[in-house]
Amino acid sequence: MEIIDNPNKKNWKEICSRLTSSYKENEEIVSKIFKDVETIGDEALTKYTLKYDNVLIKNFLVSETEMSNSVGKVDSELKKAITVAFNNIHKFHSAQKSKKIIVETSKGVECWQKKYPIESVGLYVPGGTAPLFSTLLMLAIPAKIAGCDEIIVCTPPDIDGKVSNVILYTAFLCGIKKLYKVGGIQSIAALSIGTESVPKVYKIFGPGNQFINSAKQYALKYNVSIDLPAGPSEVLIVADKTSNPSFVAIDLIAQAEHGIDSQSILVANDKNVIKSVLEETNKIISKLTRKNILNESMKNSKFVIFKNDIDAVDFINYYAPEHYMICVEKKQFYIDGLKNAGSVFIGNFSPETLGDYASGTNHTLPTSGFARQYSGVNLDSFLKSITFQKITKDGIRGIGPHVELLADAEGLDAHKMSVTLRLKEIQND
Amino acid sequence: MEIIDNPNKKNWKEICSRLTSSYKENEEIVSKIFKDVETIGDEALTKYTLKYDNVLIKNFLVSETEMSNSVGKVDSELKKAITVAFNNIHKFHSAQKSKKIIVETSKGVECWQKKYPIESVGLYVPGGTAPLFSTLLMLAIPAKIAGCDEIIVCTPPDIDGKVSNVILYTAFLCGIKKLYKVGGIQSIAALSIGTESVPKVYKIFGPGNQFINSAKQYALKYNVSIDLPAGPSEVLIVADKTSNPSFVAIDLIAQAEHGIDSQSILVANDKNVIKSVLEETNKIISKLTRKNILNESMKNSKFVIFKNDIDAVDFINYYAPEHYMICVEKKQFYIDGLKNAGSVFIGNFSPETLGDYASGTNHTLPTSGFARQYSGVNLDSFLKSITFQKITKDGIRGIGPHVELLADAEGLDAHKMSVTLRLKEIQND
Repeated sequence: MEIIDNPNKKNWKEICSRLTSSYKENEEIVSKIFKDVETIGDEALTKYTLKYDNVLIKNFLVSETEMSNSVGKVDSELKKAITVAFNNIHKFHSAQKSKKIIVETSKGVECWQKKYPIESVGLYVPGGTAPLFSTLLMLAIPAKIAGCDEIIVCTPPDIDGKVSNVILYTAFLCGIKKLYKVGGIQSIAALSIGTESVPKVYKIFGPGNQFINSAKQYALKYNVSIDLPAGPSEVLIVADKTSNPSFVAIDLIAQAEHGIDSQSILVANDKNVIKSVLEETNKIISKLTRKNILNESMKNSKFVIFKNDIDAVDFINYYAPEHYMICVEKKQFYIDGLKNAGSVFIGNFSPETLGDYASGTNHTLPTSGFARQYSGVNLDSFLKSITFQKITKDGIRGIGPHVELLADAEGLDAHKMSVTLRLKEIQND
Repeated sequence: MEIIDNPNKKNWKEICSRLTSSYKENEEIVSKIFKDVETIGDEALTKYTLKYDNVLIKNFLVSETEMSNSVGKVDSELKKAITVAFNNIHKFHSAQKSKKIIVETSKGVECWQKKYPIESVGLYVPGGTAPLFSTLLMLAIPAKIAGCDEIIVCTPPDIDGKVSNVILYTAFLCGIKKLYKVGGIQSIAALSIGTESVPKVYKIFGPGNQFINSAKQYALKYNVSIDLPAGPSEVLIVADKTSNPSFVAIDLIAQAEHGIDSQSILVANDKNVIKSVLEETNKIISKLTRKNILNESMKNSKFVIFKNDIDAVDFINYYAPEHYMICVEKKQFYIDGLKNAGSVFIGNFSPETLGDYASGTNHTLPTSGFARQYSGVNLDSFLKSITFQKITKDGIRGIGPHVELLADAEGLDAHKMSVTLRLKEIQND
């Protein structure tokens, strides 16, 4: 942890630098696995699942019966909680539906824009230390609302070759029909290329470790697109004396609990705030189970003091945090000054954790400063816009002669002629 | 040119394959130029501009006076035509503005999504054989409507070290303040990294040859994003006996005139349609100036016959054309069946050329089958969505206990505690 007092703008770049592993580092292993999947398909999936997940799997597809059977195997309170999350996420993403836009730009020139679902999408749900069913909710719900025809879920099997019941239950609740027990680079390769069992998709979604992220970058070579370039998770909290130091402390720690490369930033206008939060942080960490991770990741934490709110806002926009919590009296000032962030949490009773699970916003968000130019996952991530134009004879009479000149000025005479031939055809109409 | 009669689905993949150069082929030269720009900045821009554009340039920024002076140097009819295009593009892209979405997902849990401009964008306008001012219109207008703070335009200088007056005039009309006389890979490197004169941007837009496209792919390594992966331009026309064979022919040719790798596809339900279009094609080509290009690119052209409209629609969706012209009687059938395309042109008087310049839709569109998952450039390309949540004490009382369970099930105890501490704080309220 580092405390930085009123840093000069010159130093912001360094302060805001993130721990990101380079895609280059993993390129060798990623390209090898992709090549294997391309050559031997499912056999490669079996081989790498045995190697990395220590389990022999030949049939990757989880049956629909297995999914529906999971209903009886998940604690009823947990099912209720998942349903609360499901409903809020569903409400918020449904509200993102947009209407067809129709404009008559000139007389007889009607243009419109309409959104269409991406036909086939792949959702990656990490396994690892815990089954991340919340990620499945965040990806499957908007995919379903968008109307994607084919939704393929991949998630690594556990040591017994199973997928946890809570993931299966969530998949069932979301109406997923195709869930495959395959994770790691090999699953991203399968979604990019297609194998005997796993279909090729057009776009891949989902978080993961550095290997998954490198594999997603590599997938671009196979004309697959991805949701977001991903890096370690991060939070930036701006706090003043109206904030609650123990709330701020636990939220910094909650972020740091994700992994040793996570980053928690505190921005405050007052040294006493920093001091109180620091005291609470030390008290709380000792009570938690993931102490080993926290001791590492809290080293990436920075507590930054700005006397001036304007500088603080500038710094926050420069950092472009994935998660941004506003715990100050002058909330509106910080909201109005916002330019770059993934998701914003306003006030002392809006901890990031609520957004991670159940407020309704999406938790798949841009990290590493990508909030400067990327949105988090939302309904539009599963759609694409198509534009249309329908032009009448009057329409081409109006704009056609101008377009002839424009095409001519760009030296494209067949373009020009495509208009000329039509204008000739209708000259006596 | 190839005529294909009722192809079996097994062969669609091959028929729909595009001519695309691999990014790998150019990686060496691209990485060398990026490295040079990173090391010596403007000096590298001067060096490569001399090498590739054969002109010595030390001051890359075009002055605002130079831009405003161009007003008097462009033919007034051409200026009028550019204004017609400007107005239509402006109308259509302004209509794409979307409202803030606000939802109370649960009592006391207010979520919203709001779009924000990407602060800094780079627009690449190709030079080459002709000044592509239409591309500048297509990129600068939505960037301005979005409210991007900094809009940087790069375009290659001509042999006299100048930028054509029509480009300068268009830039002036669009309110561009920063236009740089630099093109090629070096301009993309400058926008990705920043030099003494060219600012680094967050997102790069614009078409270009295979070197520009490889450079844009490479830019991703510098945490810059791009509009679209780009490939050669293409059109697919579906026609029946109600179409006009000479219109269809000139539209196939207009597409092919872009470059030797362009592709024009005709889908028809009738051999006679194919025959008539073919005759017209041969007649028209002989009259055009770009015969050398056309003789090459028309080799990539395919005329495909489907007896069945359903198969034809399936094939068209499989191909996912950048430009898609519907010149048949059953227009609505083909519109309703649409799943994948960049921009659609409906009816005999809606040639693609109108959309290239002035109907109002954007001409920066997904090629090479990317229409399956990418939108063309639109207003949203210059924006990102940020989500917000403001949760009251009642709000966290309602969803908090569920979130505790969810965090617990994912093994994240600091996440759980961030809710628990708050629920404790308000238990006696």
